Amino acid sequence: MTYQNDLIIRTAKGEPTERTPVWLMRQAGRILKEYRELRSTLSGFKELVETPHLAAEVTIQPVDLLNVDAAIIFSDILVVPEAMGLTYEMIEKKGPHFPETIETENDLNKLIIPDPYEGLEYTLEAIKITKKELDGRVPIIGFAGAPWTIFSYMIEGGGSKTFSKAKKMLYVNPTLSHKLLEMITQTTIKYLKAQTECGAEIVQLFDSWAGILSEEQYKEFALPYISKICDSIDEVPVTVFAKGAYFMRKEMGKLNCRTIGLDWNMDPILSRELIGPEKTLQGNLDPCVLYSDFKTIEQKTKEMLEKFKGHSHIANLGHGVYPDISPDAVRCFIDTVKAF
Amino acid sequence: MTYQNDLIIRTAKGEPTERTPVWLMRQAGRILKEYRELRSTLSGFKELVETPHLAAEVTIQPVDLLNVDAAIIFSDILVVPEAMGLTYEMIEKKGPHFPETIETENDLNKLIIPDPYEGLEYTLEAIKITKKELDGRVPIIGFAGAPWTIFSYMIEGGGSKTFSKAKKMLYVNPTLSHKLLEMITQTTIKYLKAQTECGAEIVQLFDSWAGILSEEQYKEFALPYISKICDSIDEVPVTVFAKGAYFMRKEMGKLNCRTIGLDWNMDPILSRELIGPEKTLQGNLDPCVLYSDFKTIEQKTKEMLEKFKGHSHIANLGHGVYPDISPDAVRCFIDTVKAF
Repeated sequence: MTYQNDLIIRTAKGEPTERTPVWLMRQAGRILKEYRELRSTLSGFKELVETPHLAAEVTIQPVDLLNVDAAIIFSDILVVPEAMGLTYEMIEKKGPHFPETIETENDLNKLIIPDPYEGLEYTLEAIKITKKELDGRVPIIGFAGAPWTIFSYMIEGGGSKTFSKAKKMLYVNPTLSHKLLEMITQTTIKYLKAQTECGAEIVQLFDSWAGILSEEQYKEFALPYISKICDSIDEVPVTVFAKGAYFMRKEMGKLNCRTIGLDWNMDPILSRELIGPEKTLQGNLDPCVLYSDFKTIEQKTKEMLEKFKGHSHIANLGHGVYPDISPDAVRCFIDTVKAF
Repeated sequence: MTYQNDLIIRTAKGEPTERTPVWLMRQAGRILKEYRELRSTLSGFKELVETPHLAAEVTIQPVDLLNVDAAIIFSDILVVPEAMGLTYEMIEKKGPHFPETIETENDLNKLIIPDPYEGLEYTLEAIKITKKELDGRVPIIGFAGAPWTIFSYMIEGGGSKTFSKAKKMLYVNPTLSHKLLEMITQTTIKYLKAQTECGAEIVQLFDSWAGILSEEQYKEFALPYISKICDSIDEVPVTVFAKGAYFMRKEMGKLNCRTIGLDWNMDPILSRELIGPEKTLQGNLDPCVLYSDFKTIEQKTKEMLEKFKGHSHIANLGHGVYPDISPDAVRCFIDTVKAF
């Protein structure tokens, strides 16, 4: 199939392109009134995630409405622990909650490494529908949470400022921790491979809680599992986004992946030095810049682009777009990248 | 007055000492059953903060029970916005909440720069009582929040994962932002000076939300105000702890203060390189290490101490001690430092 726009894939692969591709983390979501309208007719967030034609619909919305260079499948990183046997609830205005968590070896024994076509079929089906409906307009990005981040939810039971319960587990029961991380890793590999089989042309790992681990713990409990996933996925280019793991940039540069995501705290020039010239970098405008007037957005976006110049770069924010950002501000960001 | 133990002051000043001094952020608090017992007899957290003889009592508890080398006055960084005119509530298991926040110039005009002896007299009185009761056993650390962190609570109205409302204010109304930051700075200078007049022998600035600003914003909205405070306090050594501001370490080294606090993500060796040889560094064991067995605590503490060796160092955790850590684990950490 010939893409009408395959900029992001060529950029991820390190090929020269006519301009920098652009998309936004959380582009399919509450920033769009079309999303909020659809969402308001449903029982909850999970209904949307688990209904393939609706998930496909909101996946495509930002392609139509914002003109981004890629669609990212609408889903949640917590579908993986759920398919492994640990159900989550999404509580309005509060976030995810796991009624049961992993505390003992016994809890672990109840988990499974699911066949994604059975436990995660709704997202795979959503990718297939999206693929068909996009008809080659832009590529589809698949994704999963990185093992440490998924682990931390499974131990902690929800969001946390410190994730001290999850970190405690690493110290007091490293054996159980490694076992669970390995199970998550195996599930994630199968799941990402299935996503590529169904039409995902890039996959991204989100290590949202990378920044709360010490360097030493990251090297023992997080990086090896990310590395294993990168080594296992050769179907499509892989992106790794480890938020807050500034202390791991050198090591990230050695991963068997194509793209490294940067958060807004990470200086692009220093990050390029640490990561090396080969990788594509993705990011990293401060999402709060999009609260500014258009002149400021344009200026800050150009300054950001300048810092990435000379090497492969996929423009994005340094974090998911915040729900109260106006779509016009997002369009200003996107148009600035495209005109650069 | 001659101290029985003035190790921390001499270390902060960069003088050679017989051993590394040690204390813990949040050492006066829920880790101690003696604290929880006292706290349970009161209406709430604020009653404790605002009742000088009780605040003094819990300030001294860790000196008696844990043998730390310094007492840090029991209080909260949010007493400053309250004295400026913005009342806070401390909601059990949820954290601080401001019923009113700063949104407009008009809101700003209602704030004052209080005389600390009128608006913050309870903490000053607590310092005086502590001073008297400690009778020179160990020095007293006074503290305040750094202006950006206080600002972020005053705009946001409470804790937040992103502090996007506070960051938005920096982008959409930099004039109002600078005015408020300046008012907080003036209040903080007066308050810290009053603390030293009442007996504080070191003062520490906590920039708890430093890590959510981009480097550019930190340089415009955070660092200049910290710098102004450092320049204004020459009575006692000043410590600056900007959690997560790894990208500012070089600049921190140039502040007119004596000690820089490091969180557990910041490598001591690289931090020393960036900050330079002159400053005393404070930190930075991962607080979660204290969930381990004693052997591990001892080993990780020694490894941490080794990394700071050769220059002035005050041992501490890289964050406040978590409430469910056992006092015996804390004692193991303290004893390991003392025996090193």
